[in-house]
Amino acid sequence: MSKLFVRTLRDDPAAAEIPSHRFLVRAGYIRRVAPGIYSWLPLGLKVLQRVENIVREEMDAMGGQEVLLPALLPREPYEISNRWAEYGPNLFRLVDRKGADMLLGPTHEEMFTLLVKDLYSSYKDLPVILYQIQTKYRDEARPRAGILRGREFVMKDSYSFDVDDEGLDASYLKHRDAYIRIFDRLGFEYVIVKANAGAMGGSASEEFLALSENGEDTFVRSAGGYAANVEAVTVPVPDPIDFTDAPPARVVDTPDVPTIDTLVALLNERYPREDRAWQAGDTLKNVVFMTVAPDGTRAPLVIGLPGDRDVDPDRLAVAVEPSVIEPFEDEDFKRYPGLVKGYIGPVLDGAALLGEKASSGVRYLLDPRVVAGTTWATGANVDRKHVIGLVAGRDFTSDGVADVADVREGDPAPDNSGPLTLARGVEMGHIFQLGRKYAESLDLKVLDKNGKLVTVTMGSYGIGVSRAVGMIAESTCDDKGLCWPAEVAPFQVQIVATGKGGEILEAATRIAEQLDAAGVRVLLDDRKASPGVKFTDAELLGMPTSLVVGRGLADGVVELRDRKTGSKREVSVEEAVDEVLTVLDQLN
Amino acid sequence: MSKLFVRTLRDDPAAAEIPSHRFLVRAGYIRRVAPGIYSWLPLGLKVLQRVENIVREEMDAMGGQEVLLPALLPREPYEISNRWAEYGPNLFRLVDRKGADMLLGPTHEEMFTLLVKDLYSSYKDLPVILYQIQTKYRDEARPRAGILRGREFVMKDSYSFDVDDEGLDASYLKHRDAYIRIFDRLGFEYVIVKANAGAMGGSASEEFLALSENGEDTFVRSAGGYAANVEAVTVPVPDPIDFTDAPPARVVDTPDVPTIDTLVALLNERYPREDRAWQAGDTLKNVVFMTVAPDGTRAPLVIGLPGDRDVDPDRLAVAVEPSVIEPFEDEDFKRYPGLVKGYIGPVLDGAALLGEKASSGVRYLLDPRVVAGTTWATGANVDRKHVIGLVAGRDFTSDGVADVADVREGDPAPDNSGPLTLARGVEMGHIFQLGRKYAESLDLKVLDKNGKLVTVTMGSYGIGVSRAVGMIAESTCDDKGLCWPAEVAPFQVQIVATGKGGEILEAATRIAEQLDAAGVRVLLDDRKASPGVKFTDAELLGMPTSLVVGRGLADGVVELRDRKTGSKREVSVEEAVDEVLTVLDQLN
Repeated sequence: MSKLFVRTLRDDPAAAEIPSHRFLVRAGYIRRVAPGIYSWLPLGLKVLQRVENIVREEMDAMGGQEVLLPALLPREPYEISNRWAEYGPNLFRLVDRKGADMLLGPTHEEMFTLLVKDLYSSYKDLPVILYQIQTKYRDEARPRAGILRGREFVMKDSYSFDVDDEGLDASYLKHRDAYIRIFDRLGFEYVIVKANAGAMGGSASEEFLALSENGEDTFVRSAGGYAANVEAVTVPVPDPIDFTDAPPARVVDTPDVPTIDTLVALLNERYPREDRAWQAGDTLKNVVFMTVAPDGTRAPLVIGLPGDRDVDPDRLAVAVEPSVIEPFEDEDFKRYPGLVKGYIGPVLDGAALLGEKASSGVRYLLDPRVVAGTTWATGANVDRKHVIGLVAGRDFTSDGVADVADVREGDPAPDNSGPLTLARGVEMGHIFQLGRKYAESLDLKVLDKNGKLVTVTMGSYGIGVSRAVGMIAESTCDDKGLCWPAEVAPFQVQIVATGKGGEILEAATRIAEQLDAAGVRVLLDDRKASPGVKFTDAELLGMPTSLVVGRGLADGVVELRDRKTGSKREVSVEEAVDEVLTVLDQLN
Repeated sequence: MSKLFVRTLRDDPAAAEIPSHRFLVRAGYIRRVAPGIYSWLPLGLKVLQRVENIVREEMDAMGGQEVLLPALLPREPYEISNRWAEYGPNLFRLVDRKGADMLLGPTHEEMFTLLVKDLYSSYKDLPVILYQIQTKYRDEARPRAGILRGREFVMKDSYSFDVDDEGLDASYLKHRDAYIRIFDRLGFEYVIVKANAGAMGGSASEEFLALSENGEDTFVRSAGGYAANVEAVTVPVPDPIDFTDAPPARVVDTPDVPTIDTLVALLNERYPREDRAWQAGDTLKNVVFMTVAPDGTRAPLVIGLPGDRDVDPDRLAVAVEPSVIEPFEDEDFKRYPGLVKGYIGPVLDGAALLGEKASSGVRYLLDPRVVAGTTWATGANVDRKHVIGLVAGRDFTSDGVADVADVREGDPAPDNSGPLTLARGVEMGHIFQLGRKYAESLDLKVLDKNGKLVTVTMGSYGIGVSRAVGMIAESTCDDKGLCWPAEVAPFQVQIVATGKGGEILEAATRIAEQLDAAGVRVLLDDRKASPGVKFTDAELLGMPTSLVVGRGLADGVVELRDRKTGSKREVSVEEAVDEVLTVLDQLN
């Protein structure tokens, strides 16, 4: 340790948001170079390499073949797939000395598609699974938590190529199983949740989320086993209601109702119902947004949902990808006079109930709960007027469904497996079935058994490797410092030599050499420092086991400490090596 | 092999300039993505990883500590060191979403200096040697030869930090020894040559050049052991000559002498010497260039050298770094009327011999051979006139020495170790003593024994790791394909199963499994292909040993082939595994 390139810090670094980030910096594992860009010092790199090797072993075991593609890439393939535009400011772009547009790869679907196209031409060549462990680049708007969300980071990305859907299902399941083995070995708690594929396109998609209070991703789960990313939760759709006997809708005056609450209060005061009082859930709230397509086209979008719900911006963002959402400003209302601020309603079927088809031409999507036969109070597309008794499917329809309302603790799971609870996590892995999107745009076809050209179907699978280092640290650290699982710890044992006698350092060195010869990764703290400093540092650095060689040596004993439990016990110096080997066996 | 992601090509790829590049592409080791940017396929990546591990082992053995710095770097440190400007168009620059200037690291002196400054503060912390094996970026004007000169490439770069010059010498020698071990293990022929540190600054500097006819670097060596990069060769400086009795110089008319040859002819015709005829080497040629400093400042530079020599543009380029050289155009002559085209001479001591101090104010450097007492015929700074009998040190001096004349086969080595021969090579490693340049500009100081702040002295050391893969291929391949040394080969043995009998593939598989169990890296060619195709592919892929399991199996024999010598011999199938193990032992 006197030679190791490390310095421990007593004070927390500025702007370190979460415990693992603070400890990784304080313990000398990583250092910040620029926002979201970090250097790996010797201790940190050892953990990173160990995590890489776990991922590599399991990818090899499931039949993946390792390759290494460049990080600096030409624009053309990403232009063809449209991601050059879709990635927006998240992509690092540059121009080379000859004026060619290039990018730093955020993920490599296009390049792998072209690589397989370059080499393969027949169904006999498939399936194939290729992977790389490689440095990726994303110009995140808000890099955070050190290596948990960086702008330069290490990722394992893999891609499967199959000739048909059954093949893709098999490749997907192979990955799912391998990921379970990998994350089990990495040792943090995780859940597999249904996910939305986002900008990647595609269909079946699951995320591996590490449970973490500090996580950026919210997910839901039920006692019955349902789990999904909040973006991917679906609302159970109620059965339609018979509306044969429903009374006709009528327009009512509703001045000064800027909110759902004031609307409900007014309805109860002026238009009370006999059976029960008006509630927020009886109103149909219509919220207007501006969508901006990748080509810059702007168009309004109205979402109709029960008045006791809000639109979840993350769920909405996923639903409109690759377009993005912007607020609908007062100026926009001027350009669309049919959209009456505070009184927006659905376009009514047949003749408009009031005035003309006021909001016609504007895309209107409905929450899945608004099924045919449900009755609502909603805006009349006229200032200071609402409609009550408006029946879905009789009086109005929509351009489609938008399942973008906020998800709440206690909401029913879509598979009837019980009420949902909300939790937070960090996305550690993502597997998805891309299908033929990239193969079609980049023309990856092979000859099938009948000599016919067919488009290949693909899967894309990622693991945040550097992020995993951060997550392991985050999920295992305590108030004293890091606390590594044995398999990824930079050293399995830290030998702490305390006291001034030369024989102490000699004995410690001898034990270290014996352990090293037995294949154990040992760090010997041979520094000239006080026992207090050494113990504090050992706890901060977080090796699973430590062995204190100190005052007890005179009585022939050394102390064995377990970092996780804090337990200590004396063992005889002769048996120290065997004891350590036994303890390590149990840890693995 | 039926599952391996590889396809061999019968035809040479377009624009593959050298044999190794052709074979690496044809054998499916690498694929081009963009100019100077390549993907590593499974076979190529295995070689790259093996080379990386050799480098890592030797760097660890000499006490280096591995770290990993980002490739995407902020501008500021490179601005302070002035390399943001000095690198010119060779640097990939980009701007992030917040408008910050960034670069892709071509080498990391600045970042390592700052890292050590961040952690260390005392002489007790030193020496320290840090290294990384990392992807580097240089926007080469002419990327060539596949992975031999790429724009994205893998490099091992290391940096030593010492408190004094003796320490730096020791760190430098440690690297030199480690490099010798590394290059010996990599198995290509190389020479260690004196080098110029170029843009890196610093003093002692050596290059490890792999011998290669296709190499871009010219170097010289003598039978007596001298070796230097052409940019670093120095001219042996002759002793000064007593000029007491030298006759005075005189101006002569020399119309129409556009070249040295015409000048010599005219001198011999009109001004013949008694002792011997005029020769080109008796004339002092003065060549003018325009230098452009990093800040854009332009200034003429005149180089005086014997008329039988030419200025070597590469040697000149190194001599003027970080300025660059541009031609001196006719317009420039107009702006500097003292520089008379075709008749430029040195500024004469004391009063000018002719007219005024015509070219005064222009920097004038002399070849080291122009020592005091040598006598020359040279331009008179006046149109159509030369001066003869002009004595260096008596009639003219210079602003300094410029050792930039071309180096020729047969020139004497500067250490008197015999005549020089010229050869070509590829730079595989470079070690140099940076000294305090970066530590000074980035303020890396530590407290010395007396509690005084001293500037740290540094060394910088690089190995082209991906380039080494190309060079090993280049130096070992033959007309049939690649031919890997055992230590870096992707597989040690290729088992070729030929013929249709199921028992052949069974026997081949059994032998492959036994070898695999013995820790041998085996590739089994189990494809349905003709023996001819398989043999050709085995030679192209270049594993050191192959084992043919085919027709002979009926007689209980298999054939053992050595890729390098082409030798073949039959061994009994029972002894095949042991025979292979014996052969591999001999190869290692």
